[in-house]
Amino acid sequence: MQTKKADLGVLGLGVMGAMLALNFADNGGFDVGLYNRTHEKATRLKAENPDLAERLHPSETLQDFVASLATPRVIVLMLSAGSAVDEQLAQLQPLLEDGDIIIDAGNADFNDTRRRNALYDGTGLHFVGMGVSGGESGARHGPSIMVGGSAEAFKRLKPLLEPIAAKYDGSPCIDWLGTDGAGHFVKTIHNGIEYADMQMIAEIYAILRDGSGLPAGQIGDVFADWNTRGLSSYLVEITATVLKEVDTETGKPLVDLIVDEAGQKGTGRWSVIEAQKLGIGATALEAAVAARCISSARHLRLAAAEVYGDLGIDAAIFGTAPADIAELESALETAKIVAYAQGYTVLAAASEEFGWNLPMGEIARIWRAGCIIRSVLLQDIMQAYEGGASVQNLLLVPAFAERVKLGQVALRKVVAKAAAAGVPVPALSSALAYFDDLRRGRGAANLIQGQRDFFGAHTFRRLDREGVFHHIWPEA
Amino acid sequence: MQTKKADLGVLGLGVMGAMLALNFADNGGFDVGLYNRTHEKATRLKAENPDLAERLHPSETLQDFVASLATPRVIVLMLSAGSAVDEQLAQLQPLLEDGDIIIDAGNADFNDTRRRNALYDGTGLHFVGMGVSGGESGARHGPSIMVGGSAEAFKRLKPLLEPIAAKYDGSPCIDWLGTDGAGHFVKTIHNGIEYADMQMIAEIYAILRDGSGLPAGQIGDVFADWNTRGLSSYLVEITATVLKEVDTETGKPLVDLIVDEAGQKGTGRWSVIEAQKLGIGATALEAAVAARCISSARHLRLAAAEVYGDLGIDAAIFGTAPADIAELESALETAKIVAYAQGYTVLAAASEEFGWNLPMGEIARIWRAGCIIRSVLLQDIMQAYEGGASVQNLLLVPAFAERVKLGQVALRKVVAKAAAAGVPVPALSSALAYFDDLRRGRGAANLIQGQRDFFGAHTFRRLDREGVFHHIWPEA
Repeated sequence: MQTKKADLGVLGLGVMGAMLALNFADNGGFDVGLYNRTHEKATRLKAENPDLAERLHPSETLQDFVASLATPRVIVLMLSAGSAVDEQLAQLQPLLEDGDIIIDAGNADFNDTRRRNALYDGTGLHFVGMGVSGGESGARHGPSIMVGGSAEAFKRLKPLLEPIAAKYDGSPCIDWLGTDGAGHFVKTIHNGIEYADMQMIAEIYAILRDGSGLPAGQIGDVFADWNTRGLSSYLVEITATVLKEVDTETGKPLVDLIVDEAGQKGTGRWSVIEAQKLGIGATALEAAVAARCISSARHLRLAAAEVYGDLGIDAAIFGTAPADIAELESALETAKIVAYAQGYTVLAAASEEFGWNLPMGEIARIWRAGCIIRSVLLQDIMQAYEGGASVQNLLLVPAFAERVKLGQVALRKVVAKAAAAGVPVPALSSALAYFDDLRRGRGAANLIQGQRDFFGAHTFRRLDREGVFHHIWPEA
Repeated sequence: MQTKKADLGVLGLGVMGAMLALNFADNGGFDVGLYNRTHEKATRLKAENPDLAERLHPSETLQDFVASLATPRVIVLMLSAGSAVDEQLAQLQPLLEDGDIIIDAGNADFNDTRRRNALYDGTGLHFVGMGVSGGESGARHGPSIMVGGSAEAFKRLKPLLEPIAAKYDGSPCIDWLGTDGAGHFVKTIHNGIEYADMQMIAEIYAILRDGSGLPAGQIGDVFADWNTRGLSSYLVEITATVLKEVDTETGKPLVDLIVDEAGQKGTGRWSVIEAQKLGIGATALEAAVAARCISSARHLRLAAAEVYGDLGIDAAIFGTAPADIAELESALETAKIVAYAQGYTVLAAASEEFGWNLPMGEIARIWRAGCIIRSVLLQDIMQAYEGGASVQNLLLVPAFAERVKLGQVALRKVVAKAAAAGVPVPALSSALAYFDDLRRGRGAANLIQGQRDFFGAHTFRRLDREGVFHHIWPEA
């Protein structure tokens, strides 16, 4: 029988919940109450981790679990997003007392987090929406943690969360980002950027595979080399590892045996829906989400391949000389900067819309370690916001502008060649189009305004005088 | 005092409501009750249309308006989308009787229409969500009408609506498309396609302006010529007119004086959000909505133009020889087919998701006249669905596949040249990438699945055996 109360409880012991619980016990040295609907998961987690067993305290019922926690309690929920969370909250609420904190550490839709936050207003309980990134390994050894909710609740949580967070040069990758849904929103955009980053890498992989004709292992070497410079990042690093992995049974590169249908769990989609609602053109993120959707229609793609044949296109126009590879590296780096600029624009718009006053540089700081998109680029982004600098768009910050001025040459060439070679590069070309659209003082939307005024009397403004005009057009 | 009751009533006399009311009176020969919160709008509409005045019956109060209508009543609401509709419905409901039909003819979010439909279930009243396309002139002289709601209600509405609808070869462009939100959903996707169509036209315009160096009037001539062939459509027709219009005061092409910030009223955005929710990659529609968003940040674009200068790019690589112009024509036509294929894919997915059983060919039929996207292409799309043909994707239909096989050559060249020339073509390049992705039997998402399995244990499938696998990867 446990006599000392646990420091906190983890409810929901799937992969991520189990790893977080071990992290609290291990790196925090905390006593952790454990609860899972299937009790066996809780007891097995304790049994399988004998070195941490004395700090893991499974309870068989929700009542016992709540009773096992020191008050005021801290309960970390790690459940599938959606109704499971609402149901669990409803069961928990009557068992809790003033000052208790419930943390939703799953990938919640921030709209749900805002709604749940409002529900707890004035109940004496605190609801904290917390984004956790880093996958299984991050959760176990140190994730990046994005906290939303009341600043008061965070003050109490900080000593519990700092020890389990990833460290970058010793400083923990965790912070309070704003009220209600701020933490989950930032995590959502993190994932949108992650989708774009992964898609752009996959597009370059396709060019190297189908355009340059390199085998997977050699492409892995290319990415491993890139990981030593400007593109240095967790995703590029694991790309190299994945590409170089050989299937022991067949002796073939494992990646060549994997079905080309990408799954998704919803956060990428949320990110672009929220961007849309905010009126932000996050085109690289959108292209990445769409590419996963298209990939998943494999039967349709195979039917289309049948209908269209090879079209007589020569894909082999991408070379393998050092200059060719360097061109791809520069194109990827440039497009990646554009994708991050888009993601940050969405964050800025949401910050204003929801009154969060998001600490933009701080977000880059806590993304530098632990999370999936950790990279040297985030260090540069952090610096762009240093001293509370006001940033309209990252592409306008001198340090990035210099890199993009150079890199756009390569991005332009790669997109042009890919179009000719028939290798689809939706995210790279979206990034290029976004850049060219942004830097264009005079766009083409004047024609669209003319059309809208023609058919819908939607009016337009003029360059040469103030006011709003409706023109009496001749009949078409 | 009016003795004969009106055949129907129109509530909300903004531009679209007023035009619909006149259309009912004129082409339907109906007696039309009129109500507007500002009564003067109703009386002025009657005063300004003396030839129709005897059929226009303004009421000063909502009570009088309802009382002025023959029972069971038909009331057409034409209000701004959102809470205004809910408030009006709440005021109307106690005044109505069993069998009365309320039509929401505005651009409603179909989610609202579904919610409102459910509210009226079992009340004896009918709620009909109806999409109306054609702008001001269409509403007055014959719009395309997309009806959702109960089939029973439509049976009664048909004789009222057919006379006011656009006619294509004498057949009215109106039909019942499905229950609850079907009409408004189809209208939303119509508008998403419209955004893509307009954006692609604007991109070609930008190429002709900035890449070929043609003045607006000559670009207008190009579009006027294209309007005689495969691209023949209302939008291409009015594009020519808009481009050729000269500002009488300055003597300059009017389009050159219009500010390049595109407005939007939300339906384009809804279309891509719904596509996202349905997991459909409607990339050309997304690119078009995003381009409007980016255009509207003109101050930011001007700042970016300052930062980046001209980058030493030569935009003048697009010629003006007949072959150059023909290449642009073919590229636009091909990209347009892709955009329509995407829009129809969204419709098909929604039809399944919401159990509407949407009549796909019929939708093309009623879009052939009256609406903004009317074009000869819709005749071909209608034929693709003839005899209830099952269509996976329009790009796989032989008639379109033949055209796209030819046209993709031009689209490819134009996208490549635009990338090199620095002219942003986000919608055209999205369409090309979608096509290349779709026709690619082997995509690049195998790498993404490898990455996801690496960092999140998300598992993958293999090409060479059944099952779902998780690999034990080496540490990155």
